[in-house]
Amino acid sequence: MSTDLPDVSGISIGILGGTGDQGKGLARRFALAGNPVLIGSRSAERAQEAAAGLGGQVSGADNATVAAEADVVIVAIPWDGHRSTLESLRAELAGKIVIDCVNPLGFDKQGAYALPVEEGSAAQQAAAVLPDSRVVAAFHHVSAVLLLDPEVEEIDLDVLVLGDDREATDTVQALAARINGVRGVYGGRLRNAHQIEALTANLISINRRYKAHAGLRVTDV
Amino acid sequence: MSTDLPDVSGISIGILGGTGDQGKGLARRFALAGNPVLIGSRSAERAQEAAAGLGGQVSGADNATVAAEADVVIVAIPWDGHRSTLESLRAELAGKIVIDCVNPLGFDKQGAYALPVEEGSAAQQAAAVLPDSRVVAAFHHVSAVLLLDPEVEEIDLDVLVLGDDREATDTVQALAARINGVRGVYGGRLRNAHQIEALTANLISINRRYKAHAGLRVTDV
Repeated sequence: MSTDLPDVSGISIGILGGTGDQGKGLARRFALAGNPVLIGSRSAERAQEAAAGLGGQVSGADNATVAAEADVVIVAIPWDGHRSTLESLRAELAGKIVIDCVNPLGFDKQGAYALPVEEGSAAQQAAAVLPDSRVVAAFHHVSAVLLLDPEVEEIDLDVLVLGDDREATDTVQALAARINGVRGVYGGRLRNAHQIEALTANLISINRRYKAHAGLRVTDV
Repeated sequence: MSTDLPDVSGISIGILGGTGDQGKGLARRFALAGNPVLIGSRSAERAQEAAAGLGGQVSGADNATVAAEADVVIVAIPWDGHRSTLESLRAELAGKIVIDCVNPLGFDKQGAYALPVEEGSAAQQAAAVLPDSRVVAAFHHVSAVLLLDPEVEEIDLDVLVLGDDREATDTVQALAARINGVRGVYGGRLRNAHQIEALTANLISINRRYKAHAGLRVTDV
């Protein structure tokens, strides 16, 4: 795999929905890597609480402040409020790389399944709502449990990075590689994001069957 | 990973569309593993030609004969004729495990993308058309190039196996493991097959970017 990716060691990373398990797990790993991290939440107070527990250069604020201040912004909010939250942050997110890691899933007795999304995928919805941002899809398959586990030093996972802007996907691949053990692998254009989001339902099935925290590695790359 | 799977060393494997690259590649690997293989095609003659080039216990016949005679049948036909071919073989395939590996994809200047399927996925279409068969989705991501390459002794890939019938998915997992290097990993119910089929578009993007024959491995399993 070519490793001609930009240096992102000094980039500050904002995480909208950073008080949830996935957002907090990513915050923890980026802080461990030495990047400044801004945890966002609807409540600045809850964001500050989450940040305080993580150590490193982690601070907390409301989503709008984080969206405005961070160099790169990860969207880790629940699917429920996805569209409306992004609409409310359009100005703050203009010109930035916005990384969508939201998985639109439903759950019933038979497990998880992919929800239909009018725009095709959460990432495409983000791109439609944020025409002035550079939307990249990534970090869908990271296990929050592993990210948050202090005993887990390396995450055995390739993060698939999708988008239509080469500079933006290169940056996000480099960011993924800041997490110990992780590679960022280009995974195609944004129009092929749906199946990457939906694949999380399969990983949930795999986790149930094998009592695992399954991830994916891409072979021959 | 639990390995409590059935012994499938004596099972005969029919491959509809076995003259195409993917079907022929699978035929070659199963023959190498020692399983009797029946290659099916619309033309019995072309099936026999394809079989003759493969060695091992491989024979060729028209699709209907193969569907009737094989213990387990793999559907490796083009998406174009998927529904009509399966409809014409309903009686022959009744009671059997039918493995669908078809990827409904479109191609344009920007590469591959997933086609919408009325039933949700090719595998669900097969299940709808073949109510008396046990449809399993698997073998979507195998590289025909690697399967057919005599220099490649091991295929570095986990085959994701999806279905609603545990005995059938166990059998197909065991069949996948007949190919050197491959594991068969349970990947969820049939309703989550769409994203596994569509993911082939992402693998095509990965192959282009990295000049690879990419596959997937599931970690922690």
